[in-house]
Amino acid sequence: MALLSVADALARILDGLTPLDTETVALTEAHGRVLAEDLAARLTQPPFDASAMDGYAVRAEDVVTLPATLQLIGESAAGAGFKGDVRRGQTVRIFTGAPVPNGADTIVIQENAEAAVGVVTVTETEPGRHIRPRGQDFNQGEILLHAGTRLGPRELMLAAAMNHAELTVRRKPKVAILATGDEIMPPGTALAPDQIVSSVPYGLAAMIENEGGEALSLGIAKDDPESLVTLARAGSAADILVTIGGASVGDRDLVASALKSEGLKLDFWKVAMRPGNPLLYGRLGSTRLLGLPGNPVSALVCAHVFLLPMLRRMLGVAPETRPSPDALLGEDLEANGAREHYMRAVSAWSSAGERVVRPLPSQDSSLVAAFASADCLIVRAADAPPARQGARVKIIPLEAS
Amino acid sequence: MALLSVADALARILDGLTPLDTETVALTEAHGRVLAEDLAARLTQPPFDASAMDGYAVRAEDVVTLPATLQLIGESAAGAGFKGDVRRGQTVRIFTGAPVPNGADTIVIQENAEAAVGVVTVTETEPGRHIRPRGQDFNQGEILLHAGTRLGPRELMLAAAMNHAELTVRRKPKVAILATGDEIMPPGTALAPDQIVSSVPYGLAAMIENEGGEALSLGIAKDDPESLVTLARAGSAADILVTIGGASVGDRDLVASALKSEGLKLDFWKVAMRPGNPLLYGRLGSTRLLGLPGNPVSALVCAHVFLLPMLRRMLGVAPETRPSPDALLGEDLEANGAREHYMRAVSAWSSAGERVVRPLPSQDSSLVAAFASADCLIVRAADAPPARQGARVKIIPLEAS
Repeated sequence: MALLSVADALARILDGLTPLDTETVALTEAHGRVLAEDLAARLTQPPFDASAMDGYAVRAEDVVTLPATLQLIGESAAGAGFKGDVRRGQTVRIFTGAPVPNGADTIVIQENAEAAVGVVTVTETEPGRHIRPRGQDFNQGEILLHAGTRLGPRELMLAAAMNHAELTVRRKPKVAILATGDEIMPPGTALAPDQIVSSVPYGLAAMIENEGGEALSLGIAKDDPESLVTLARAGSAADILVTIGGASVGDRDLVASALKSEGLKLDFWKVAMRPGNPLLYGRLGSTRLLGLPGNPVSALVCAHVFLLPMLRRMLGVAPETRPSPDALLGEDLEANGAREHYMRAVSAWSSAGERVVRPLPSQDSSLVAAFASADCLIVRAADAPPARQGARVKIIPLEAS
Repeated sequence: MALLSVADALARILDGLTPLDTETVALTEAHGRVLAEDLAARLTQPPFDASAMDGYAVRAEDVVTLPATLQLIGESAAGAGFKGDVRRGQTVRIFTGAPVPNGADTIVIQENAEAAVGVVTVTETEPGRHIRPRGQDFNQGEILLHAGTRLGPRELMLAAAMNHAELTVRRKPKVAILATGDEIMPPGTALAPDQIVSSVPYGLAAMIENEGGEALSLGIAKDDPESLVTLARAGSAADILVTIGGASVGDRDLVASALKSEGLKLDFWKVAMRPGNPLLYGRLGSTRLLGLPGNPVSALVCAHVFLLPMLRRMLGVAPETRPSPDALLGEDLEANGAREHYMRAVSAWSSAGERVVRPLPSQDSSLVAAFASADCLIVRAADAPPARQGARVKIIPLEAS
């Protein structure tokens, strides 16, 4: 089977993938979800000309000559505006956010006024100052949050301020995770000499949750078709079935052959990347199958490169407008071979504030502890020439949690 | 009351704050939690000398002269190692991750060997190659994850690989959120002219969850002591009680005076920052009280500056080793006044890969929609001199979700 470039493999994987259905959730349940529709403001903010400061509402024409002494006729507070008019020679005590009373057009900040019984003397002011005009923040009907926006703290605060109690979001992509291998045991087990702890599902589930998906563990299948098919069927309602291992045992390709009986349409097998082989992709009814290598580091790197883009497409996440970040090489790199290389690296920050990255001394993909100590992947193109210390390189940041 | 610097205010707030109790959770529940104890490996990985490639296990002395034809005597797979010895002139088929059989000391990759019936002809090799020595990843008893580590995908994968099914983490800090104000209504309400939608609690809850805390909404208190006290009592089991507003209505200080009857020990009121005033801090029994301004942008900026450090301290999060990030100014800035200024800004990336930040045209703290469009805060020190385009400035990134 042909060796595919990463870009070609990703294009095939994303081909025909469309955003999932929508659902309506309460604002309190919307954190981390992705907005499915453009969201228009249900009100105008501020709904009236409002004071930006604590002070006194005056008519500019009354404070042309300073100091000017005005009659204090009332108070305008947030939630309790002054009902009357401010007429010539009058002023109203006003607080931040409160409506500017009729007739007034200027706010004198309290530091520039002296209050006595029933009167206020203005010592300094500028006409028209310290008023937030109606609609300065936004107007009713204005679209302030767009479909494809991921809802974080500030987006949720804004949606609330727009007077929305519920939001229409994409359904969470369901990802079923199936580990495979006779030798694979759950963590906490007393291990026989040839056994290995299952670790990839735990990292994968956290990545899926971070991205806004829902992870479902199907357990660990034995290296036989019956076990594989039985457990895989429990994931048939998932949008994506991720298998781990089972295609890496040299000449054998257990996952693909077992799932063929279930109707698997296999797309490709090998991608020109390291770490990362073999990779399996196909369709099983309406479920997409992504077969990751059994090697933990390879599995998570492949999940970054292939699974996260699938989830983003299913969530309808707006494409990233920020270019993928660059960093400076902290040391020389040799020419790369025919496979795109995702080098585990650690960063330091130069005194000029630049991110300086150095690959870990060993790029052996079996080193799980070293992988946890990395904070980014340096992406080296296939057949890249040698790169010198100080050169710019493309990186994929690996977040801490 | 004196105007405190941000650094002094933060020092007072963090004074005496210690990490919360610990609890033990399943690995599947540990995502985003903070490790409370150093974690030692419960096994050695790899547990035996293992093959790094698919190929043939040989004795180096047998392949000094090439090509060399060897007798194929068996197979070593992951989970099913070869039980016998490899003697002179013999070889064993071996797969990635499988134990290197006794007697063998070199792996010949399959591309450099030709297999026939019962024999294998080695065409190229290097002595000792392609073996992962026992313990190359880690050794039993080795501490690989330290107390204070936040558990993300790679940390969870590593903890599993270390054979831990459960982890001891810090209890989640409980943060009760109490909005205040006669004019404040929940989102989705048909509003009277003077009413304002409650928005801060939704942004705050998401910030608290992102940091690993648990947010509890107490609702909206009226501007009277009875309502404030009644609702605040529902949060008495919280580690932190955050109030919003109620101290910003000019001359009035409802929250502080109402909670004094409950035993509030007030610490300070005003901090030399903008946006951000007034800020209230105190202790109410074993609960810490943080009173945020009612203005939504000010409230969330203060939460970044004061609440997140409180949560990190309670979670025992290891101090950040990475310096706070810098960026380049995209335009000139005027001299700053006496208050530290947290300017809402948007970033672009230069062709050289540098983050270039420009403050939003209006820094009015009432602009919630503009705040949602920012991606960082530029931190300007009190009394900072003018800064020119291209100068380095300290920023606080505002994450998307």
